[in-house]
Amino acid sequence: MQLLPGFRDFFPEDCAQRNYILATWREVARRYGFVEYDGPVLEPIELYRKKSGGELVGQLFDFVDKGERHVAMRPEMTPTLARMVAARERDFKKPLKWFCVPQFFRYEKQQRGRLREFYQLNCDLIGEASASADAELLALLIDMLRAFGLSQQDFVVRVSDRNAWCQFALNRGVSEERLLDFLAVIDKWERASREESGRRLAEFGLTPEDIEQFLASPGPEADHLKSLAADLKARGLDGYIELDLTIVRGLAYYTGFVFEVFDRAKSERALAGGGRYDRLIELMSDGKLSLPALGFGMGDVVLANLIQDIPAAKSLRDQWVAQQHAADVFVVLADENRRPEALGILQTLREAGYRTDYALAPAKVGKQFQQAEHRGATLAVVIGQEWPAVKLKHLARREESTIDQTELLTALSPLLAKS
Amino acid sequence: MQLLPGFRDFFPEDCAQRNYILATWREVARRYGFVEYDGPVLEPIELYRKKSGGELVGQLFDFVDKGERHVAMRPEMTPTLARMVAARERDFKKPLKWFCVPQFFRYEKQQRGRLREFYQLNCDLIGEASASADAELLALLIDMLRAFGLSQQDFVVRVSDRNAWCQFALNRGVSEERLLDFLAVIDKWERASREESGRRLAEFGLTPEDIEQFLASPGPEADHLKSLAADLKARGLDGYIELDLTIVRGLAYYTGFVFEVFDRAKSERALAGGGRYDRLIELMSDGKLSLPALGFGMGDVVLANLIQDIPAAKSLRDQWVAQQHAADVFVVLADENRRPEALGILQTLREAGYRTDYALAPAKVGKQFQQAEHRGATLAVVIGQEWPAVKLKHLARREESTIDQTELLTALSPLLAKS
Repeated sequence: MQLLPGFRDFFPEDCAQRNYILATWREVARRYGFVEYDGPVLEPIELYRKKSGGELVGQLFDFVDKGERHVAMRPEMTPTLARMVAARERDFKKPLKWFCVPQFFRYEKQQRGRLREFYQLNCDLIGEASASADAELLALLIDMLRAFGLSQQDFVVRVSDRNAWCQFALNRGVSEERLLDFLAVIDKWERASREESGRRLAEFGLTPEDIEQFLASPGPEADHLKSLAADLKARGLDGYIELDLTIVRGLAYYTGFVFEVFDRAKSERALAGGGRYDRLIELMSDGKLSLPALGFGMGDVVLANLIQDIPAAKSLRDQWVAQQHAADVFVVLADENRRPEALGILQTLREAGYRTDYALAPAKVGKQFQQAEHRGATLAVVIGQEWPAVKLKHLARREESTIDQTELLTALSPLLAKS
Repeated sequence: MQLLPGFRDFFPEDCAQRNYILATWREVARRYGFVEYDGPVLEPIELYRKKSGGELVGQLFDFVDKGERHVAMRPEMTPTLARMVAARERDFKKPLKWFCVPQFFRYEKQQRGRLREFYQLNCDLIGEASASADAELLALLIDMLRAFGLSQQDFVVRVSDRNAWCQFALNRGVSEERLLDFLAVIDKWERASREESGRRLAEFGLTPEDIEQFLASPGPEADHLKSLAADLKARGLDGYIELDLTIVRGLAYYTGFVFEVFDRAKSERALAGGGRYDRLIELMSDGKLSLPALGFGMGDVVLANLIQDIPAAKSLRDQWVAQQHAADVFVVLADENRRPEALGILQTLREAGYRTDYALAPAKVGKQFQQAEHRGATLAVVIGQEWPAVKLKHLARREESTIDQTELLTALSPLLAKS
């Protein structure tokens, strides 16, 4: 009985590593004033067909349910977000700063960094068109990665602006209708040979030299990115971004500012990507509502690979995981006749909020101490013939004291102060 | 564009209420030494067919995927748990104390307390056959509900033992093969008329009087439940349980001790239920592994309804939700020329871990203060012409001081001490 290809079991260690990523995403997003939302795992397939391009429709886990509805497991969040915002936008003050940490499902070929299910942080900022919104979102993205112990040496945010290319192309006589086709040539620029790009550019009356020249000195068309950079400089975060106009992002719905994050070694897929999609809410709401918007997505699989490879990041994660699993106190029962008293102490400790464990079945004292070590307990409380006196042991420090049971909580508390 | 029937959108307020339940489940489970695991949302359908009874197969969201695999969205966790334990049980010391908080999918008729997706806490204790394991699990269940602000006046755990009934029936000449059929009569006892039960009992040579007599004084067959009650009494938790042998639970795989939790008003469906399933792992592993086990499930939908109805519980939840959404600090920009300095302060505060927000677009000072109130901020930092002096305002207390910006973190910290 096997699990499906591209899906994961999360044994306790894996689950803690996943939870570390989810918890860090949530914590940093909240620090930036973002609030969490979520939507259904299953949606009508039309929701995904409607979105311009429908790039993901070919990769859906879709089916007809018992009520004859054609449904799909969610492959992305933006259509759900657009539906939700369109339904209730009047209830919320603008700009919205919303995030979620959903699991997505895509029937894709498995490879390093790509599974058939994954978690993805989505952060969206809706209702603010200015460059300060662009900078706020990038700052969040950068601090998000820094919170995992990743530094300027580990990752870079490559920022670009589709509008700069559109301006460039319009200035050189490319027609409005052909702009998306032109952007597709730029999208392939780094992967295609110079010859091949040249052939495709000729259709637009352009040469590879024109492109290279613009990449080297983009001129006033890229002014938007300059005010973005100034904002990030004021936050001390400008060292994390690089202007790179070869980034245009494949998705048709992006309207201006776009960006992608890569590890410096570029040994992994993109860690995150996003941009402005100022017309998508209008499209999804059939023109009922128009709001400027931008957002990014960051998946857990590539991020987890990078954390595993960067010692400082791995060490932060391992500390968090150890702390999640450790018990505070282990109650050792040295005299089986005192079981009721031990259970009372156990309950008192748990009610005080301490993570407390004990041996369910009668066991020798030495074996109970082994269990305490295995559970990563900081303290052991030994209950035996001396009752109502109990022994309190600090396991790492190998210190021990004998106290009256009524003094236990007072004696414990300074020893378990959370760092 | 609507969401599917039986599925939920989680707008920020709904999402926080959901997260409150998930966070409380996790916190209390960890206090009891339980560690979290998780499995895939999608599994091969055979996994659910294999489990004795296959009660849920008719309610599956199942389909054939693009790789011709017959798959199903998970309707429950036990089969996945059994698969995972069978795969790697040697890696873990017994007993396992494992929990998870998965979302499940069942194509059911919607009604109060029942949707087509829901979250369910699952706590399982594997590898320990003694009554102390039964008591530990019940104590966890009780403390879990108490953590939501629910008291002895709000809920009751009705405990029972299938073995007591089996012993009763065998003593009265019912054959081993017919025990499950006999249990099915007891399962319906409270809902069926006395006449109907009498007709069905006659097949076993029994009368309603026999059942009533056993319910009133079960004798030595229920001794197991007495040692369970003694353990809970030592913890001060015996007031939460009631012996009620009419509980036998529908599922075929339970082997002994079983229980269900109801609100005292009994106005909702069962809040939780579970019991021992000592033979299920053997069945799921084709006899390769045999481990005693017990567990319970607690869904979010009925629990959320009850929290909403009990004032003490609602108030605890609402406090948590407000605390989740509130900003610590709002940075007010009183002089647009000082935007770079304000952004620097914003970054400093966020790096110190404070939830900090500000107005993205230039706005009048009064309007910025309105935004600060709306965001539930505790403090406002006003940056203007006095720079490098800044104003620090405590919004609720209406207190204000002027300090040098370098002293900001020192001045803030005592005002934001978390309770």
